[in-house]
Amino acid sequence: MARVAVAVVGSGECDADTAALASEVGRLIAERGAILITGGSTGVMEAASRGAHTAGGLVVGILAGADPAAANAWVEVAIPTGMGQLRNGLIVSSAGAVIAVAGEWGTLSEIALARKTGKPVVGLHTWRCARPDGESDDLVQADTPQAAVDHVFALLGR
Amino acid sequence: MARVAVAVVGSGECDADTAALASEVGRLIAERGAILITGGSTGVMEAASRGAHTAGGLVVGILAGADPAAANAWVEVAIPTGMGQLRNGLIVSSAGAVIAVAGEWGTLSEIALARKTGKPVVGLHTWRCARPDGESDDLVQADTPQAAVDHVFALLGR
Amino acid sequence: MARVAVAVVGSGECDADTAALASEVGRLIAERGAILITGGSTGVMEAASRGAHTAGGLVVGILAGADPAAANAWVEVAIPTGMGQLRNGLIVSSAGAVIAVAGEWGTLSEIALARKTGKPVVGLHTWRCARPDGESDDLVQADTPQAAVDHVFALLGR
Amino acid sequence: MARVAVAVVGSGECDADTAALASEVGRLIAERGAILITGGSTGVMEAASRGAHTAGGLVVGILAGADPAAANAWVEVAIPTGMGQLRNGLIVSSAGAVIAVAGEWGTLSEIALARKTGKPVVGLHTWRCARPDGESDDLVQADTPQAAVDHVFALLGR
Repeated sequence: MARVAVAVVGSGECDADTAALASEVGRLIAERGAILITGGSTGVMEAASRGAHTAGGLVVGILAGADPAAANAWVEVAIPTGMGQLRNGLIVSSAGAVIAVAGEWGTLSEIALARKTGKPVVGLHTWRCARPDGESDDLVQADTPQAAVDHVFALLGR
Repeated sequence: MARVAVAVVGSGECDADTAALASEVGRLIAERGAILITGGSTGVMEAASRGAHTAGGLVVGILAGADPAAANAWVEVAIPTGMGQLRNGLIVSSAGAVIAVAGEWGTLSEIALARKTGKPVVGLHTWRCARPDGESDDLVQADTPQAAVDHVFALLGR
Repeated sequence: MARVAVAVVGSGECDADTAALASEVGRLIAERGAILITGGSTGVMEAASRGAHTAGGLVVGILAGADPAAANAWVEVAIPTGMGQLRNGLIVSSAGAVIAVAGEWGTLSEIALARKTGKPVVGLHTWRCARPDGESDDLVQADTPQAAVDHVFALLGR
Repeated sequence: MARVAVAVVGSGECDADTAALASEVGRLIAERGAILITGGSTGVMEAASRGAHTAGGLVVGILAGADPAAANAWVEVAIPTGMGQLRNGLIVSSAGAVIAVAGEWGTLSEIALARKTGKPVVGLHTWRCARPDGESDDLVQADTPQAAVDHVFALLGR
């Protein structure tokens, strides 16, 4: 049976503190026995992949481009889509839940698509949005990698 | 040569005031000679389509499903993708600029994808987001349909 | 209501005879009041687009790349997907029927996807395939543009 | 580094002989240390997945629908795309090479997309096609699973 998969989304460029958070999130996902899914590129994606791979986890990279060699060094299963930014939707559809670490506009698109399709999302130092009527987005925000991962697995019923 | 196209994005359900705004936006886009692109469904998409069609404009609907008959009555060119929410990215890639009218999570995904890919976006009573570092998203917000459309065409250099 | 759309698929490079066939097919589709859909590029796509546009028809180009300026000169509605060859499936899903003029492997993929999804297909000097059990593919082959277009509109019940 | 991946494509319904061939192909791919990629459904996809999984291989299923639970029992990594038949292109883009076992129109679309994008393809009791000019398609056809897999790995330089 297909294993549970959790996506970590975030920017292709990030500072060392954010990379450390992402790596820790990746490690914790692997230790819970879930597959890590990312966009397979640099920055947060690479840090999370390194964390999961080093902990013995399985890392899937769903790439924007068509060349599998563009995946970061920790990706074991590369899915080179050639679909550009439309691949963001595949990252979301392939995961049972999403953890957003900091991030830019691409990350926000993934948060929004996950919410649109009813996938659990937890933010870690990420975007906060106000709906058109001024109400909060109700996005769950965690303070630590451990809290983010615990929350996601609780939502997944595991 | 391919005509300029502007996307209007928003929710599949909306109140009468929002529909009136969307319809006015559609009408103004048509009067400027641009093609209107929407997701081809109900709510804001239908209101904008009606406004553009009634003003003699060309209306394109990029549908989530595979059945062209699901397009609203004002769509002249139906693009039934069968791609579900991944079609949101096609709405953005097909437009030179995007006007977001109110909206839910799907709309936010379209705003974010447009910003990610460098497309001009103007909001009309839509989401407001704060980046991870707390800074504003710098999304241009308009108060009226006329201001939104004027702003978009100025950004398009027309 | 969305207008009927017919796709013309074929290679991005073709000889003058094939271009003349494609142009005639495009013209006849336009004269029947249907929208022409192609991949928006050169060769058969451009010839069909020219034929339809010159006859006053509406031409939609569903592009592999993300730049609308890559559409040929006769495309009025450009849908730049940025999806590469995956856009072949969108050409098929957007059309009520497909006419294949000569063609290379990309064309064969479109013929196959159309048959897979139950869309009528007519070939004009195109691929002929034998199923694994050796039986013919039962693909309707026409000898002239007029016969191809007549056949497609009959299948569409028009 | 991302592992080598080979796709096995074929119909969702097949007879016992074809299933036995597909299962053997899956087993041999796993024994060569490559990832198996299929559409994750029934028939040839399931038989190949069973063969690879039983031999200790890693099985990826790129699904037409959005529900990971639709994957067959041998899929370890499910990529539920929600893209319908457009996911055929992702199966091809994700693999370094393609082995086609018998098959229907969907399989032919995958053969054609693989050839279009320059991926090695080997057929095993599959379609045979004649180009518009009457020439053969030059598709390599193998007589046995062993020959098919040997050929593919030779083309991959392994």
